[in-house]
Amino acid sequence: MTVRRLSILGVGLLGGSMGLAARRVWPACRVVGYGHRQSSLDRALALGAIDEAFTDAPRAVDGADLVVLCTPVGTFESLLTSIAPTLASGAIVTDVGSTKRSVVTAAERILPAGVRFVGSHPMSGSEKRGVEFSRADLFQGATCVVTPTPRTDPDALRDVEQFWRALGMNLRTLSPDDHDRLLADVSHLPHVLAAALVTMQDDSGLDVCGKGFIDATRIASGDGALWSDILIDNRANLRASVERVKQALDHAVTLIEADNPEALQAWLNSAARRRDALLERRAGGSETARNEAVSKGQGPVTPV
Amino acid sequence: MTVRRLSILGVGLLGGSMGLAARRVWPACRVVGYGHRQSSLDRALALGAIDEAFTDAPRAVDGADLVVLCTPVGTFESLLTSIAPTLASGAIVTDVGSTKRSVVTAAERILPAGVRFVGSHPMSGSEKRGVEFSRADLFQGATCVVTPTPRTDPDALRDVEQFWRALGMNLRTLSPDDHDRLLADVSHLPHVLAAALVTMQDDSGLDVCGKGFIDATRIASGDGALWSDILIDNRANLRASVERVKQALDHAVTLIEADNPEALQAWLNSAARRRDALLERRAGGSETARNEAVSKGQGPVTPV
Repeated sequence: MTVRRLSILGVGLLGGSMGLAARRVWPACRVVGYGHRQSSLDRALALGAIDEAFTDAPRAVDGADLVVLCTPVGTFESLLTSIAPTLASGAIVTDVGSTKRSVVTAAERILPAGVRFVGSHPMSGSEKRGVEFSRADLFQGATCVVTPTPRTDPDALRDVEQFWRALGMNLRTLSPDDHDRLLADVSHLPHVLAAALVTMQDDSGLDVCGKGFIDATRIASGDGALWSDILIDNRANLRASVERVKQALDHAVTLIEADNPEALQAWLNSAARRRDALLERRAGGSETARNEAVSKGQGPVTPV
Repeated sequence: MTVRRLSILGVGLLGGSMGLAARRVWPACRVVGYGHRQSSLDRALALGAIDEAFTDAPRAVDGADLVVLCTPVGTFESLLTSIAPTLASGAIVTDVGSTKRSVVTAAERILPAGVRFVGSHPMSGSEKRGVEFSRADLFQGATCVVTPTPRTDPDALRDVEQFWRALGMNLRTLSPDDHDRLLADVSHLPHVLAAALVTMQDDSGLDVCGKGFIDATRIASGDGALWSDILIDNRANLRASVERVKQALDHAVTLIEADNPEALQAWLNSAARRRDALLERRAGGSETARNEAVSKGQGPVTPV
């Protein structure tokens, strides 16, 4: 797939990085950005992340062969409704949302025949937010999940996969339902746990917390508006994930109260081995995991 | 306090770093190490972390004016019993354990009159384990909690505080009970949560996990033997902490299911603000917190 006119709806860190990367991969590609703040669009233009800017979404998708939704999950349905009449026949639409069932369902309902939708979740995080932190290599080496359904056009799926691969991503395929169920466990639940851990502390506890607490709660510093969209959208799976972690906690308490160090050690060591195996598998991927996998060779974490 | 003969029982990362730091602060101090593996002691000698090595604890404390227990929490009681007859009258004994009530109670029961005990918890963590990773500056800028009781000798308390301060630590004072209750919330509970999060996942979930999961579960890679001692020793507080985090999770689920983005955002943002305030307060302290506080100026975490 050669993208001639790429429309990026929402030019923040992800959208801006996508523009920089696309212009590098396809120098002839025209990158169009939509945003509701002119100031962000001006920064994106100045950084060379986009060639044209619109504060009107329908105009931003006019003539585009690939449209990528990069706004928060909760805005997708109204955004799809607003751009549907303007999308060119044959255009492909995808997204970067952290939940997939709702956007895939909405797209299949709202978009006209001839416009082809493929759900995507490029998992390229960063501490930073805003177009000014865009990097052409943000997607490099990270995982992107695509979520086709029986109604997904196979050519569009292949083109979208090729698009993410061209940006350096490793592809995974899941159904929208499997994606949302698994992400509830590995991403949305950890976020809720981190927020719960922080809010339950009193000041005297925070005064004596160590590096372990700081790391375990890093994700709790995320943007509340962005995350409340995600958690509400995936609430059914998340409720099940919360129940499962409560059961795991009860299991741990049972082991601890049994005063049986061997059984508790076995459980703790199985967690440590499982996480270490995960780091090994990811060592070719993200920088964090690679660095940590290297330092893991020097031994496990000391309690503080 | 000028330490003339310092006895370090357990020469791993903490014990070795203590030896290096003490020899720098008090060049005339004789540092004696005890360990059950001659190979670790040989490495400690070669690194200059200790001057003399013993695989026999009573001999290692003979003539010491300051003795520091640096072995795992579960070994303290038998170690105190074995060294009690050999300790010099006037000697001060302290420790580096992650729980305090049990060791303080055991020391006050076991140690002879004339030997003075002060409980300590220097919170100097590292990814690494073993004397070969010792650093003279490991304690620099970190927090040390001392846990005096009504039976603690005021001069010994002052001397122990001075010892940790000479190693660069910031002192906090808590009762043993308050220490164990607060540490259950900020250290022991996060460890159990991280292990629960890892063990509850299936392989397909781990295959699509992102940086957030990796960070949130880092502490789960810790040594199971070391941690099972801590968790069992502090089980009563830990059970209460687990109940409180389950209540916080239930509260989050209620907000999520109410489909009220504003209330959920407010809760998530209160967690984010609370954690950010914690990073600000710690910015003068650990390198992790300082680095993160700097990068926080660039905006919050993007979901992946």
